[in-house]
Amino acid sequence: MGGDHGPRVTLAACRQFLDRHPEARLLLVGQPDGLSGFVHERAVVVPASEVVSMDDPVEVALRRKKDSSMRVAIQQVKEGAAQVAVSAGNTGALMAIARYLLKTLDGIDRPAIATQMPNAQGGATTVLDLGANVDCSAEHLVQFAVMGAALVSALQEERPEPTVGLLNIGEEVIKGNEIIKKTGELLRSAAKSGDINFYGNVEGNDIFKGTVDIVVCDGFVGNVALKASEGVASMIVGALKQEFKRSIFTKVAAVVAYPVLSALMQRMDHRRYNGAALLGLRGLVFKSHGSADTMAFEQALNRAYDAARNNLLDRVRTRVAHAAPLLAPADVQPVA
Amino acid sequence: MGGDHGPRVTLAACRQFLDRHPEARLLLVGQPDGLSGFVHERAVVVPASEVVSMDDPVEVALRRKKDSSMRVAIQQVKEGAAQVAVSAGNTGALMAIARYLLKTLDGIDRPAIATQMPNAQGGATTVLDLGANVDCSAEHLVQFAVMGAALVSALQEERPEPTVGLLNIGEEVIKGNEIIKKTGELLRSAAKSGDINFYGNVEGNDIFKGTVDIVVCDGFVGNVALKASEGVASMIVGALKQEFKRSIFTKVAAVVAYPVLSALMQRMDHRRYNGAALLGLRGLVFKSHGSADTMAFEQALNRAYDAARNNLLDRVRTRVAHAAPLLAPADVQPVA
Repeated sequence: MGGDHGPRVTLAACRQFLDRHPEARLLLVGQPDGLSGFVHERAVVVPASEVVSMDDPVEVALRRKKDSSMRVAIQQVKEGAAQVAVSAGNTGALMAIARYLLKTLDGIDRPAIATQMPNAQGGATTVLDLGANVDCSAEHLVQFAVMGAALVSALQEERPEPTVGLLNIGEEVIKGNEIIKKTGELLRSAAKSGDINFYGNVEGNDIFKGTVDIVVCDGFVGNVALKASEGVASMIVGALKQEFKRSIFTKVAAVVAYPVLSALMQRMDHRRYNGAALLGLRGLVFKSHGSADTMAFEQALNRAYDAARNNLLDRVRTRVAHAAPLLAPADVQPVA
Repeated sequence: MGGDHGPRVTLAACRQFLDRHPEARLLLVGQPDGLSGFVHERAVVVPASEVVSMDDPVEVALRRKKDSSMRVAIQQVKEGAAQVAVSAGNTGALMAIARYLLKTLDGIDRPAIATQMPNAQGGATTVLDLGANVDCSAEHLVQFAVMGAALVSALQEERPEPTVGLLNIGEEVIKGNEIIKKTGELLRSAAKSGDINFYGNVEGNDIFKGTVDIVVCDGFVGNVALKASEGVASMIVGALKQEFKRSIFTKVAAVVAYPVLSALMQRMDHRRYNGAALLGLRGLVFKSHGSADTMAFEQALNRAYDAARNNLLDRVRTRVAHAAPLLAPADVQPVA
């Protein structure tokens, strides 16, 4: 039901997704009226009478709308009827409901949101956290690193031991605030014990250079970096359009340059990277951008499908268990 | 002496600057051998035997190189021989020496670095802090807001009461970590007492939309946002070049589109915004990017000149004094 466009987009994406993956099966969760037009032998409608709107406060989504499509979808994951849930709805509500119904994994205090951003290597950099957590401790950031490594190893088979960078304001170990310095120490320990392939500190531009596979930061910093980056990209695209519209000569130039600009846009197309993972829960949940079109929503379905197929949940659980001694806050360590 | 190119660039910029400003006078501080070629009736060489290098640790710059060009230049400001110092050298060393020699203003705990970033309005957004301060308190962030307002009012005459936005992960007042929420409260008080034209929370993309004149954040977040933005811009420009080089057809398209692309590059040219202000000191210091070319270094000189001419120091002092009750940390407020 979710996202800016609702079933018109999500159902079209579902059809393409089913065509592409002959072994996939879908549970379409939502108001039956909106979904009944979709007939496919590998799709079943699971009714849910309510819809969480994009501006519903978390409390409303969690306490009042107990038969929302979002909640019923996550309930399917909890009960084992589904291996993964995908939603294009309200992020805060999705995280709150997922956390309430599924609970966090042992060793994880806070779930995180991980997304991919395109990089200059032609690949993508996975960044977490992106807004679910502010005021993170060093242990939380190490938890994010471990979960991010599980995610990348599940989705990118050529990266069994992905490199992790700690987002900082300089490469040297003495840089950063107290939490970041402590996180660096813990990540170096995690590298020694084989839990993480730790590269070291990285800076904001390294996200787009593709210096490492995974960039770890707290949700406040990650959110600002993501939105600032979107802002720059929009400004450049907007300026490019303005410059090409300036006169009859530039309009002709635009026609000539069109194939090149179109190739550029395709390369930078953020829709290709749609589908953020909610990590650290006892079940898999993916979040599509609310504004996703059919192509973008299908990407989110593809990512969720790959994550389920490649046992992301087990990978996270195994890695978290192995790294357990490093993930616990110092003040709750067991008495010797 | 500073920057990646040394006197070759800085002296060429000085000559252009003197040509453009018939009332300006320059003290050229550095090793006389490197500067003696520069003869101008409004320029004097002030000798300094040492040079702080780009990778000198702060301690070396501060304690060992006591006759560095950087230190002697700031000493000129302290003694009143100069109204403002400009350097393209090591940022950490410049801030440390400036703070040591000049001291902070009453009411200011920590100096900040403020720079401009181009925005989609065709203007520039002033952002501070950019790396001088990590782990800021709410009071520090309010100090930055007040100093930023003084800077913009001095450099942009059409903005006597510039708007201030607080960088956050959402527009609503309940968003953000504890320090940001408290900063929001203080800034709303500051707006009521007429100290600040506070717009409210802004997000990363607002820097480039040009939603407000000034964006306030701690140095860690500001540094990440700045570098992430530079990273995206480089990636887009790099991809554009690659796409235009792909074949003989795209190379022809590049020739046709050249005037448009060149207009775009000029519009986005970060050199136009060169010259960051070190704010909160008892004297004016500006920092040019180390990689500045002649045009860029001249911009830094122009900005420093405008700041001195428009009494930036007095403006900061007056605004800080007026806002004094809001700037003091709660735990050191006078006993009633």
